[in-house]
Amino acid sequence: MTLSDLGEFGLIERIRARFPAPQRAVGIGDDCAVLPQRDGQESLVSTDMLIEGTHFLRDDITPYQLGWKSAAVNLSDIAAMGGNPTGTLLSLALPADLTVEWIDAFLDGYAAVSAGVPLLGGDTTASPDRICINVTVLGESPSGRGRLRSNAMEGDLICVTGPLGDSAAGLKAILDGVERDADVQALIDRHYLPKPRIKEGLELAANHQVHAMMDISDGIGSDLRHILDASGVGAEIKVDDIPLSLALKRVCKRFGWDPLALAISGGEDYELLFTCNRYAEMVLTVPHFVIGRITSAGTRPAFAGFDHFKKG
Amino acid sequence: MTLSDLGEFGLIERIRARFPAPQRAVGIGDDCAVLPQRDGQESLVSTDMLIEGTHFLRDDITPYQLGWKSAAVNLSDIAAMGGNPTGTLLSLALPADLTVEWIDAFLDGYAAVSAGVPLLGGDTTASPDRICINVTVLGESPSGRGRLRSNAMEGDLICVTGPLGDSAAGLKAILDGVERDADVQALIDRHYLPKPRIKEGLELAANHQVHAMMDISDGIGSDLRHILDASGVGAEIKVDDIPLSLALKRVCKRFGWDPLALAISGGEDYELLFTCNRYAEMVLTVPHFVIGRITSAGTRPAFAGFDHFKKG
Repeated sequence: MTLSDLGEFGLIERIRARFPAPQRAVGIGDDCAVLPQRDGQESLVSTDMLIEGTHFLRDDITPYQLGWKSAAVNLSDIAAMGGNPTGTLLSLALPADLTVEWIDAFLDGYAAVSAGVPLLGGDTTASPDRICINVTVLGESPSGRGRLRSNAMEGDLICVTGPLGDSAAGLKAILDGVERDADVQALIDRHYLPKPRIKEGLELAANHQVHAMMDISDGIGSDLRHILDASGVGAEIKVDDIPLSLALKRVCKRFGWDPLALAISGGEDYELLFTCNRYAEMVLTVPHFVIGRITSAGTRPAFAGFDHFKKG
Repeated sequence: MTLSDLGEFGLIERIRARFPAPQRAVGIGDDCAVLPQRDGQESLVSTDMLIEGTHFLRDDITPYQLGWKSAAVNLSDIAAMGGNPTGTLLSLALPADLTVEWIDAFLDGYAAVSAGVPLLGGDTTASPDRICINVTVLGESPSGRGRLRSNAMEGDLICVTGPLGDSAAGLKAILDGVERDADVQALIDRHYLPKPRIKEGLELAANHQVHAMMDISDGIGSDLRHILDASGVGAEIKVDDIPLSLALKRVCKRFGWDPLALAISGGEDYELLFTCNRYAEMVLTVPHFVIGRITSAGTRPAFAGFDHFKKG
């Protein structure tokens, strides 16, 4: 049997089975691992790997964008837990013929989105051909403030912090090689330069009525499923209430793309998906859109047709 | 200008220049980053990347050995700071045709050397061809107990926790394809299955007279240089006192290899290199060998001829 038969989730289960569950910590399966500290804080840690040829093509993405995105997707995992990032570690495997200009631009993008979060360390090594990047991010939050995927409660409203589908449409525009007007460029920027919602995550986590939270990396169709499974609840989604940007609507109209399909099954928007008490929602100051509500277990959200969970 | 002109240390300097120095933490340049916590503990974190074709060849190393070594070299960084490992994160980029037996054996090796240290998370992704592994390790130590490279003091004795050169000889045996008797196999095992000196590191760090400490990953010739540079001191080394294993001596005699050259410039032994007060050394219970002493700045150790620092 090979890895392609096993699939990603089969692989993760095989890894999990070999290690004892951490006694004090939340381990594999949420946006970050959470390690309680003795002083009432929790340490957060998460890691992500980007491989040339799997996650990006060197000719499609600028080094600045690649550096930005490498840090951004990790910072977003800290945002998803309602934490404050305290540092990152950067491992870089680089082919020897890469230019110093490329490296400088990569580091500029990485530093720009890090915005004062210190680089604590890392590893630099030669790669025979492909660029390989691994970022680890550390963060902290007061104990009990971290928002796990398992906290959703029946009756909660389901909310997102911004429009969905832009990133997937940007990727489609790159792959299809469509002409880049301002709208198309805005979508491509959302794909390559996602903004981690750190401030929003901190504000939301400070509200005790905000229950479950995660960032939207795979697409809300499969990401919401993670919350429902972890919390043992169901959901009803009002598909018409899913926020779509004007740029997305205009570009989709022009090229005949389905904006809702992009919004639901497209990933990498890195907006926050959270559930909260319906009365608390009315006074939330963080910009957000209500798209549905948590129901009893067994109810599957209406966009089940857009299931990406089997993509392995 | 390309990366091959810049070299590894040029690259690290370029990275360092772009980020503010962490205000509360020791960042780039020691075995681990050190983050003070509010409760009198220090968090330690380190990361290492292994790329197929740069660090290993799939036909030369068994998956068990590769899993072991991936975790071991990171755990060794925690040992080098005198810390206790609290968890690891494992990022794996794997080609789709890898067998599940390979993956299982890799995870078995990783879990075996982890010895109860929990796996807190990670990332799994497809790789177009080469296996790419990144491990991040977290640890903790009481405040002020972490042993930095910059702590060596004039008059200190220079010590190592075990024989040197075995790992380099094992690598040479693999590359030269020599016949594998018990001695050769012992050296190859030291190369592929290094033992992180966690217990020794904890004991040494508990002694206030043990000043500077690091693990020997590049070879004592260049690793000692890091301590001398960071501490602003010099050193005298008694080359004849560098401990050599019987297996190394026998194999070197048989093939006409120079055991001292392997011990001094060969890396990856992952023994601890430390300096300590000469009176304290007499009562240390951790097995160790005295190989020289710290002198005033300017004295270069006698094995300067084996300088690997320029390998870039």
